[in-house]
Amino acid sequence: MNVREEARKMKLCAPALAASSMERRNAALEKIAEGLQNNKERIFAANREDMKAAEEAGIQTAVLKRLKYDEAKMQDGIAGIRELITLPDPVGRVLLSRELDEGLELRRISCPIGVIGVIFEARPDALVQISSLCIKSGNCAILKGGKETTFTNRVLFEIIRESVLAAGMPEGCLLQVEQHNEIDELLACDRDVDLLIPRGSNAFVRYIMENTKIPVMGHSSGICHVYVDETVDEEQAIPVIVDAKIQYAAACNAAETLLVNRKIAANFLPKAAKALRDAGVSLRGTEEAEKIIDLDGVMGEDDFATEYNDLIMSVKLVEDVQEAVDHINRFGSHHTDCILTTDDERAEYFMQMVDSAGVYRNCSTRFADGYRYGFGAEVGISTGKLHARGPVGLEGLVTYKYRLCGHGQIVADYASGKKTFHHRDL
Amino acid sequence: MNVREEARKMKLCAPALAASSMERRNAALEKIAEGLQNNKERIFAANREDMKAAEEAGIQTAVLKRLKYDEAKMQDGIAGIRELITLPDPVGRVLLSRELDEGLELRRISCPIGVIGVIFEARPDALVQISSLCIKSGNCAILKGGKETTFTNRVLFEIIRESVLAAGMPEGCLLQVEQHNEIDELLACDRDVDLLIPRGSNAFVRYIMENTKIPVMGHSSGICHVYVDETVDEEQAIPVIVDAKIQYAAACNAAETLLVNRKIAANFLPKAAKALRDAGVSLRGTEEAEKIIDLDGVMGEDDFATEYNDLIMSVKLVEDVQEAVDHINRFGSHHTDCILTTDDERAEYFMQMVDSAGVYRNCSTRFADGYRYGFGAEVGISTGKLHARGPVGLEGLVTYKYRLCGHGQIVADYASGKKTFHHRDL
Repeated sequence: MNVREEARKMKLCAPALAASSMERRNAALEKIAEGLQNNKERIFAANREDMKAAEEAGIQTAVLKRLKYDEAKMQDGIAGIRELITLPDPVGRVLLSRELDEGLELRRISCPIGVIGVIFEARPDALVQISSLCIKSGNCAILKGGKETTFTNRVLFEIIRESVLAAGMPEGCLLQVEQHNEIDELLACDRDVDLLIPRGSNAFVRYIMENTKIPVMGHSSGICHVYVDETVDEEQAIPVIVDAKIQYAAACNAAETLLVNRKIAANFLPKAAKALRDAGVSLRGTEEAEKIIDLDGVMGEDDFATEYNDLIMSVKLVEDVQEAVDHINRFGSHHTDCILTTDDERAEYFMQMVDSAGVYRNCSTRFADGYRYGFGAEVGISTGKLHARGPVGLEGLVTYKYRLCGHGQIVADYASGKKTFHHRDL
Repeated sequence: MNVREEARKMKLCAPALAASSMERRNAALEKIAEGLQNNKERIFAANREDMKAAEEAGIQTAVLKRLKYDEAKMQDGIAGIRELITLPDPVGRVLLSRELDEGLELRRISCPIGVIGVIFEARPDALVQISSLCIKSGNCAILKGGKETTFTNRVLFEIIRESVLAAGMPEGCLLQVEQHNEIDELLACDRDVDLLIPRGSNAFVRYIMENTKIPVMGHSSGICHVYVDETVDEEQAIPVIVDAKIQYAAACNAAETLLVNRKIAANFLPKAAKALRDAGVSLRGTEEAEKIIDLDGVMGEDDFATEYNDLIMSVKLVEDVQEAVDHINRFGSHHTDCILTTDDERAEYFMQMVDSAGVYRNCSTRFADGYRYGFGAEVGISTGKLHARGPVGLEGLVTYKYRLCGHGQIVADYASGKKTFHHRDL
């Protein structure tokens, strides 16, 4: 496949998809839901092929779980699509409406971004979710899933594409790319692709970010922190620390580093360490921490920029909330960081000063997720600061344009003072 | 100067500026206004040095006008600052407030982006305006102005920096870079600079965009179109076309191409051509156009991707609004494009389908400007689709963060079904 050529064609049909009514986009989503339901045996058969190949390749059990596409995951996916149908239209929202002068009306209207490339991990449910989000928001999409789900994705994509065309969407509004080398072709499509959303390993996302001129939304690493202030409510704190670390250690919003205020370290740290160890976590930390608890490894300063994605946690003592903030801003990945404190002033300082997408007080970093925030589905989590930050739902998939309607107004009349703007919001 | 080192230091003080109150930021702006007023003789003397050097270098009169900083420009600048003071705080706005569950409250709060690099043309008023916008929005700024205004900028920057420090802003929140080779150093500061805003020539902006990993907001070219449909109101149309071309031909929102519906070309085009020529515009166009009017040059298809920035206009006949849209989406720069029509349906089609920051009906493309839109000052015009599009005012200089406050909530309780989210907007 010539990805550049296909992307160019897709760009040409993007305005037609962008102009489609919400009724039509929702009808396409309903057809996808029905298509999945009606073709489930075909889908499951394809998934068995992927599972068989993965087992033969000796892929880890944890990964196999993600590859598997069964009745429960399909029903979750269908429920997700039906929920998406009920969400308000992200397109065509009037964000500003202003009369600049008599009969000269400006409106800022939300509209789809255009062509979005999404490169995602080997999870069949991700393909369903991402393509549905793109359709709902009126965007054309180029999709590349993990190779371990090739058979399943092929069948799913065929069903999704047929459903979308049956609902009257323009031919060429969805494209699946299967070959790994086609990713590089996609990265070169900066004239036609408006946004890339890469999901997957740090190294992979960083590779994408460093090898394209297309704007990228996402995150490479998730180095999240929990800071325990001396004003902590201990009983509340320990379950939060354990949850932040172990509830799903491979997730980007799992905590990697525990910062403890020096004043309470001798008392608090042994209790926290015991709870973490009981939950299967091994601990690394500074020499100072080692004087208080046993460690599985002593760390140098620079080691704190490590994302384990595993049942391992870094431990460091700090003097105060200010040192905690400085550590987080220096070693963190601007994802999600939490302070455990009963003191409003320190919480406020922490939440103001930590430069992250999520700043939390007294709750697990694992809450950083579009579903938990009530956004419906999410297309990813962004640690960048432009456009969308944190969990990105439908809102992150639209931009806006300015519409100005006049009756022959010219700028010369305003420059000469013959006319003046009155800027009256409508 | 070691720009990377300075940018690193600036990044560290960005959270403190971000957390400063609006009262303090406004006080800094007031001090800048007073500082300009109180130091005007010093500023004008410096400007005379720049003007003298520029005259000796034989710089064009049009450019000299922009270099000149006189009483009128200063008073405009001071008035601009005082208007900025009256604008609502772009920082700390609650964009979303939602209880995820009992005692677990999520808020999306606007906050400054952090460190912004602005590289701008040789205009002293630009330095005043840009630094004021950055201060108002709580952002640290690295500023690089055109070399022809070195003396003026040096004095202006000193006054601005002293004013800001006197208002209690953190040391190191503003930096001026003077050497051209320091631009390349700035482009390499992707760890510490959050956003670059380049203004200036196409080639320069494109160079910036292609040589940095820092997100860039702006536009390289402004190839704006006016399409004349056969349903046009002729009397209204001709002044709009002339204004769009000549009111300030060097501006990015000046029209470069006139597209005329074939059905009315024989009647309309000679009238439009006469009006344009009377205003000093020379015309180029397709062979087909040449059969109707005299041209100063015949154009091939690819020549339409030209930005003249001068009193020259490209002319082409098209079959219908659809062909006009296709031409604009292919050859335009996604800046601002206009349809002249009395027909609502065609206007709607054009405004939906043209993929530009501004889609206009029956008014001059020259209205695409932050001041004319009523945004106060603008920091630039973006033709990108992410974050901010079109004229960018204060809103484009902020992002947001999510604050989540709980009482020890953990995700495991929601995963197990022990608790459920109720997502109630507050």
